[in-house]
Amino acid sequence: MSWSQHEITLEARPRGVHLVTSEIAGKVPQLRDLRVGLAHIFIRHTSASLTLNENASPDVRRDFETWLNAYVPEEFAWTHTLEGSDDMPAHIKAALMGSSLTLPISGGRLALGTWQGIYLCEHRDRGGPRSLLITLSGE
Amino acid sequence: MSWSQHEITLEARPRGVHLVTSEIAGKVPQLRDLRVGLAHIFIRHTSASLTLNENASPDVRRDFETWLNAYVPEEFAWTHTLEGSDDMPAHIKAALMGSSLTLPISGGRLALGTWQGIYLCEHRDRGGPRSLLITLSGE
Amino acid sequence: MSWSQHEITLEARPRGVHLVTSEIAGKVPQLRDLRVGLAHIFIRHTSASLTLNENASPDVRRDFETWLNAYVPEEFAWTHTLEGSDDMPAHIKAALMGSSLTLPISGGRLALGTWQGIYLCEHRDRGGPRSLLITLSGE
Repeated sequence: MSWSQHEITLEARPRGVHLVTSEIAGKVPQLRDLRVGLAHIFIRHTSASLTLNENASPDVRRDFETWLNAYVPEEFAWTHTLEGSDDMPAHIKAALMGSSLTLPISGGRLALGTWQGIYLCEHRDRGGPRSLLITLSGE
Repeated sequence: MSWSQHEITLEARPRGVHLVTSEIAGKVPQLRDLRVGLAHIFIRHTSASLTLNENASPDVRRDFETWLNAYVPEEFAWTHTLEGSDDMPAHIKAALMGSSLTLPISGGRLALGTWQGIYLCEHRDRGGPRSLLITLSGE
Repeated sequence: MSWSQHEITLEARPRGVHLVTSEIAGKVPQLRDLRVGLAHIFIRHTSASLTLNENASPDVRRDFETWLNAYVPEEFAWTHTLEGSDDMPAHIKAALMGSSLTLPISGGRLALGTWQGIYLCEHRDRGGPRSLLITLSGE
C-alpha cells in the first residue's frame, strides 16, 4: 500500500475544452508503481473544471463549449457580476462538469476506456495557469 | 487493507435510465469482505453514464430521460454529427451525469441511503453492452 | 494506513445553496491524523446534493439557486408529481450537482484551493436534516 501526492500546474489555456490526458499522466510517473489503485485528480479552482469524454474529435470539444455557453449564458439574471460577465457562468459550468476525477489504475496506467480522455474545461476568458493536486493510492 | 479490481459487463439496454444497484452489487461479492471502505464504479464509455438517485418510482427515471432530452437536444448547433443525431447529446449528457461513482462501504455492503440506487444512463439509441471497472479498497 | 467512517447530521436548512466547509471539517477532527489521504463526503439523500465552489460571496450561492430553478423548472412535463412540485426538480438538480465529494487531505487538513468551499445544496422546500457519511483514508 502506498500514498503519494503531487502538485502540478497546467499552463494557461484559452477559454474552451482541452484534452490533457497525456500531459497529466506524464507529470505523475509514480503511476507506474501501482499495480492496482486510484488516481484522484483535483483542480483547486472554481471557474475551471475536469471531466472525462471523447478523446478523438476536436469537434466534440468545440460542441461542449457551445452547449455550455447556450445553457449557462452570460446574459442571465446574475447578481454576482463584479468580476466580469464570464465569471458567474464559469462557476456554474465548473459545478456541472466537476472539480475532480477519480480514475482507476491498472498495471501502472490509467485504466481508461478506448475513447476516454481527460478534459480541462477552462471557463474564463483569461483563466491563467491552473493548479492540480493529484493523490495516488494503491499497491 | 486490501485492493481489488473487477471488470464487469452490463448487457445492452434501451436508451433511458435504468436501476442497476442489485446487478452491480451481485457481480462483486468481494464487497462482503470489507468492514469499511470505498467502491469506485467506473464506466469505460463516453456516451453512457452513472449517477445515484431515487430507487423506487419508475416515473423518476422516465422524467430524467425527458429532462435530458429537453435540455441537451438533438436539434442544436452541433458540429460533430457524423455518428448520428443521438451521439453528441450523449457525450454532453454523460458529462453532466458523470462517468464514475465512489460509494462508501460499511459492514460488507454499499452504505446507500434508503432511497438511493445506482442509475445506468444509456444515452445512445443502440449503445450495446457497457463495460464497468470496479475498484474496491478498504479493510 | 488507516480507514475510518463517520456519520454526521447537518441541521435542516432552507431551500438554496449553503456553505458548510467549517461545519463538516469541525465534525471530523480525525482529519488531523492524516498526513496524506482522501476524504469522501457522501450525502445519503436524492433531493439534496454536495458540490464545491466559491467560498466568499453569498451572491454566487444565490445565483446557483436562480440558475438551477431556471434550467430545472417546476413547470415541466414531469410525470412524478405526487410528492410536490419541488420534488422531481430536486432529483435532477441533485444528479447535476452530485451526491458526493472526494477531497484531498494534506497535513491534516482538506487541501482546498483558496476560493473553494463545500456547498450543501438543499433542493426541497422542507428538506429536513441531512445525513452524511464521511469516509477517511490515508496515512
